[in-house]
Amino acid sequence: MHFTSARRLDDSVLEREFTLGEIPGILWTPTSTTPAPLILLGHPPLGLRKMYPRLAERARRAAADGFAAATIELPGSGDRPRWAAAEQARADLRRAMEAGEPVGDGIIDALVLPLVEKSVPEWRAALDALLSLPEIGGPVGYSGGVISIGIRLAMVEARVSAAVLFAGSLVPAAMFAEARRVTIPLHVLLQWDDEGNDRQAALDLFDAFASKEKTLHANMGGHTGVPQFEGDAAARFFARHLR
Amino acid sequence: MHFTSARRLDDSVLEREFTLGEIPGILWTPTSTTPAPLILLGHPPLGLRKMYPRLAERARRAAADGFAAATIELPGSGDRPRWAAAEQARADLRRAMEAGEPVGDGIIDALVLPLVEKSVPEWRAALDALLSLPEIGGPVGYSGGVISIGIRLAMVEARVSAAVLFAGSLVPAAMFAEARRVTIPLHVLLQWDDEGNDRQAALDLFDAFASKEKTLHANMGGHTGVPQFEGDAAARFFARHLR
Repeated sequence: MHFTSARRLDDSVLEREFTLGEIPGILWTPTSTTPAPLILLGHPPLGLRKMYPRLAERARRAAADGFAAATIELPGSGDRPRWAAAEQARADLRRAMEAGEPVGDGIIDALVLPLVEKSVPEWRAALDALLSLPEIGGPVGYSGGVISIGIRLAMVEARVSAAVLFAGSLVPAAMFAEARRVTIPLHVLLQWDDEGNDRQAALDLFDAFASKEKTLHANMGGHTGVPQFEGDAAARFFARHLR
Repeated sequence: MHFTSARRLDDSVLEREFTLGEIPGILWTPTSTTPAPLILLGHPPLGLRKMYPRLAERARRAAADGFAAATIELPGSGDRPRWAAAEQARADLRRAMEAGEPVGDGIIDALVLPLVEKSVPEWRAALDALLSLPEIGGPVGYSGGVISIGIRLAMVEARVSAAVLFAGSLVPAAMFAEARRVTIPLHVLLQWDDEGNDRQAALDLFDAFASKEKTLHANMGGHTGVPQFEGDAAARFFARHLR
């Protein structure tokens, strides 16, 4: 892990860009709390640069609560190399949605499963590097982004002890079996009228998680309409579990 | 409205019992805030005496947030006269549940609809009396109890401007049509494994509300297992809408 830049967002948050091998990432640490528990900030595969404003806002909120936050670029996003199968799946998805056709399992699998396979080991490697820093302690939470990545990470990575998941993306059928093996506390967000998402599938997924503590927060509106107050609710969930 | 007793629960809450005609009730007011917004505390038809510890706890929490709280005895509960049809419906319900049989629409209607018909005008009369007190201002919220009473009250009573509803009791089919006419902000609690409640019916009911702001909080466990942290979440909902 090599830091490539450092700046203060304000008096209380240090923002550092880093690379982990080929993978760019960003780490935010609160100056007030050392070592700080860590929240991994998941995000959709749109590239860190595009996602930066929202990520920085989430990181500031985490820092205000005494948490460090970190994120890495997803494979195939930002400046990272594309791969043909994913590009094809993305084009197929766009075509199906524009035609108003149901998105077939084949498209969902081709789109999501390789992303899970490639990215989860990268998040774990990032976790190794981040937890070796003296300013980062534990425990670790995971928040947001592609829900299938969150499910796999929650299932395989024992250092992740609580997760906020957004039931807002297409979930391959195979991930339901993995969800049944997730036991950490979960806070699941659902947008009731999410245009690109199947509400019943999201409810079934929430039902599938084996976690003894899991809470579903469903709100009105579409994919990007998560109300402001849900940021507070997620912060309180992490405050309960990461302190 | 006649006050029949008054005592301080602690330095910051005044608890007064009252009668409104034949109906007993309790009013809690914070000493810090005058006039205070009001939360009407709904409860299951088990009698105020039995419900008192939980009601007092909710009232203390409301007072700590600067809200007054009030409740009245439901018709047919506590020392109030029973009526034969309700007793019969209650016996039929018990028999069906003990036999593991589905609870028929006829039983649900006989159990709930008269309770709604009788109690909602009483809550409105209590509201008239409470809002005439100098220590009570507006706005008014309704919280908990028999969800059908909350639905009817939210539909007909313009002074109730936000409600926390517990999707934990049997809902007559007729109430779904009323739910479609409810437009105030709602915070709906659902226990995912509520033994006496139909999860799909609860989700359908949440879907039916016409409110632009409605949030569903679903948690694991049975009817009485609502997690402690949901008390905080409900308090924040009222803080957003009643201040």
